[in-house]
Amino acid sequence: MPNRINILVDKIVEQQLDAFIVSRSPNIRYFTNSIGGSYLVVVPGENPLLLVSALDENVARDQARFCIVENFTPSGLLNRLAEILRGGHCRNIGFDDLSLQFLERLGKRIPEAVFTQNQEIIWGQRKVKDVAEIRIMTEAGRLTDLALEALREELSVGVTEHQIAAKASFAMMRGGAEAHAFEFTVGSGPRSAYPHASVSDRKIARGDFVVVDIGALYKGYCSDITRTFVAGKPDATKTRIYETVHRSHDAAYDEMKIGASCKEVDTVSRRIIEEAGYGAQYIHSLGHGVGLEIHEPPSVSQRSTEMLEAGNVVSDEPGIYIHGDGGVRIEDTVLITVRGPRRLTDFPRGLMDSVF
Amino acid sequence: MPNRINILVDKIVEQQLDAFIVSRSPNIRYFTNSIGGSYLVVVPGENPLLLVSALDENVARDQARFCIVENFTPSGLLNRLAEILRGGHCRNIGFDDLSLQFLERLGKRIPEAVFTQNQEIIWGQRKVKDVAEIRIMTEAGRLTDLALEALREELSVGVTEHQIAAKASFAMMRGGAEAHAFEFTVGSGPRSAYPHASVSDRKIARGDFVVVDIGALYKGYCSDITRTFVAGKPDATKTRIYETVHRSHDAAYDEMKIGASCKEVDTVSRRIIEEAGYGAQYIHSLGHGVGLEIHEPPSVSQRSTEMLEAGNVVSDEPGIYIHGDGGVRIEDTVLITVRGPRRLTDFPRGLMDSVF
Repeated sequence: MPNRINILVDKIVEQQLDAFIVSRSPNIRYFTNSIGGSYLVVVPGENPLLLVSALDENVARDQARFCIVENFTPSGLLNRLAEILRGGHCRNIGFDDLSLQFLERLGKRIPEAVFTQNQEIIWGQRKVKDVAEIRIMTEAGRLTDLALEALREELSVGVTEHQIAAKASFAMMRGGAEAHAFEFTVGSGPRSAYPHASVSDRKIARGDFVVVDIGALYKGYCSDITRTFVAGKPDATKTRIYETVHRSHDAAYDEMKIGASCKEVDTVSRRIIEEAGYGAQYIHSLGHGVGLEIHEPPSVSQRSTEMLEAGNVVSDEPGIYIHGDGGVRIEDTVLITVRGPRRLTDFPRGLMDSVF
Repeated sequence: MPNRINILVDKIVEQQLDAFIVSRSPNIRYFTNSIGGSYLVVVPGENPLLLVSALDENVARDQARFCIVENFTPSGLLNRLAEILRGGHCRNIGFDDLSLQFLERLGKRIPEAVFTQNQEIIWGQRKVKDVAEIRIMTEAGRLTDLALEALREELSVGVTEHQIAAKASFAMMRGGAEAHAFEFTVGSGPRSAYPHASVSDRKIARGDFVVVDIGALYKGYCSDITRTFVAGKPDATKTRIYETVHRSHDAAYDEMKIGASCKEVDTVSRRIIEEAGYGAQYIHSLGHGVGLEIHEPPSVSQRSTEMLEAGNVVSDEPGIYIHGDGGVRIEDTVLITVRGPRRLTDFPRGLMDSVF
């Protein structure tokens, strides 16, 4: 991985901050490669310092890069932080996320300092994936495709949602995922109308939609895919719902270009579903950023003011949900490149591919 | 499940509050049975109201009990909340977790109201598990035992941590778990010295400790178990480390009785490890509460001021971690009953059971 702290330092200076305290663990992993560590203190011109509790010390000493690792005890933490910041003559101090109580106690020790929350400084960097990240996320995507292939063989009337989820989990984890990126959804029949259905002991019945929403965690990064399978030949209404979502997904995908407004991409997907008469059943936004966290900037929604950039990774996941009956969602994780959108997940999406 | 909101109402009245806003999702699930929903508003004497976004409406209408489900739009939420609270003449309003920004905006609409965060009112109730919860958590524990049995067969020199984790995941999820309760650890060789090692592609080598820390999520509830396996006959040092942790675990278990001080239980476990000369390598507390969340009150640590009560569920997980070499942790999820401690996870713990 590249030294990403260098870019953070430039931003810190640009924003006229004297120091930045990184405390969110995906941020610490992003900058240092370490899965352990509590506070990364970055003072321009000084060596970055990663403060770790006893619990994380072994892992941080082995994994952390681009910083010095230092152990802290709970009782000594605030004084040590104050000492570092005072030693660097830091007055304007940015942070990603610290509790009010923590800030009050730290502030008492450095009365001259002003603390300002600034998540944007890090999100601006994290939402544009670098080459190392794209390589990892491509593999995370491949692992979900692998899981869907395995799960596809398990699908038949009478099997439970648990059996289906177990098959997907096995393939993904055996293939190299260290965990699920989020709680899986295998929602069949009426349960397919819940966007986050989790997994139950319900048995698949003829005529069911089966919404499968899974993701792999690979070297800390997430992938996110949804496919909707259909138990038996779908009737005209089910066909129409499926095809509408599929068209909406594809139309949004085609719009995912550098400079496109996230709001407009959502609108393109929404218009198709509204025109088919299901606007009120499309009950969420089109997509969200994906990376070290499963929900990140940029949001692809009506409330977004962002534009897509090369290196963004976002989900494209329109859906229609009919309460009591069932739902359809089709989702891929998409990388924005200079040559247009590129799917990091890419299992067959066609209705005929989805009938079992 | 019983109506747990009744008990909350008694506590609200006792604390001279006029209303309570529940927003944390495990709390909403605890009181209403619904996996969806944003705000549960409880005003004594009125029907409890669960406010849900469009995304969660289907699931909440099907699952929620003991409350009225009402849909909100993002733009109408604050006014609706203010209307409910003003209608109930509520001045002293408790909440579990609301952001400062949210409180400021809500406060402007009800200037006469005073908002007070009070998590303890809910934790006091949640940390004493009722019969319905104990039944579910017993099954969650059984699912981890099942997973360890499956994983045990996979253990041999040359297999990867991924293969081991995949086997455990399959057994657990096929058996009825809807998800992992947390990110698994399969830490082998030097990686066993990381308390939270996650899972890697490292292959098991002769002489390795293999720390396996897994948990099932079952009907929303967590279980938590750790076993340390040993690749080949352990030498004298490894035997001594293993047996020390095992004795520490058992001694703490025997102390887990109603009225025992959590700090003292931690001390009992720690004394055994210190006497064996590994005090500095026991780098965490003995245990934590387990329930709808994997880390809950009561904490079983040196900083705890709590006493164990019947219905508490806590982990018992001492460990010794030698940086660069390896570590051992032995953990069960333990229910406190009037007849003493009872293990909800119960896979063989002996050294000879753990050698492969």
